[in-house]
Amino acid sequence: MSNEQLEQLRSELDDVNLKLLSLINERAGLVQKIGTVKRESGVNRFDPVRERKMLDHIADHNEGPFETSTLQHLFKQIFKAGLELQEEDNSKALLV
Amino acid sequence: MSNEQLEQLRSELDDVNLKLLSLINERAGLVQKIGTVKRESGVNRFDPVRERKMLDHIADHNEGPFETSTLQHLFKQIFKAGLELQEEDNSKALLV
Repeated sequence: MSNEQLEQLRSELDDVNLKLLSLINERAGLVQKIGTVKRESGVNRFDPVRERKMLDHIADHNEGPFETSTLQHLFKQIFKAGLELQEEDNSKALLV
Repeated sequence: MSNEQLEQLRSELDDVNLKLLSLINERAGLVQKIGTVKRESGVNRFDPVRERKMLDHIADHNEGPFETSTLQHLFKQIFKAGLELQEEDNSKALLV
């Protein structure tokens, strides 16, 4: 191994981490907007059918190297964090 | 709420999901390459100092809406999945 090779790969990994960070937060912003739209119309926020469809969509487009089961586990965590953000927004809206 | 508005936001969310999928797998590919480089040099794969640095880097660049603690939880799951992929590769290499 050359140390330069490892450093180069780590630098690429740092870039990907920041892109992931940006996308995860972009996703959270969209989830908040969806929460607002739903709240305004009194619709229930959690929609398991929609969540299932998103997981299937991800499975259909998975080209690896991660197994689909691993990806679905990761996305479920991301979905859960998004729902919690919507719930916080909802609590704040109720306090206004 | 207009249904069109909700459909538009959901369509944007689907796009972001696919970009996340692509980046998470890109990250996994880099982690595999790092694992190979480390295996060839007999270096220990798990590096808690490096993991801490990556989490700090993410915290430094977090512009929300997610809290840093939420993001660090999500990234730890992503890191863990990457390490498991390296371990699988390592087991396969030992069998060759």
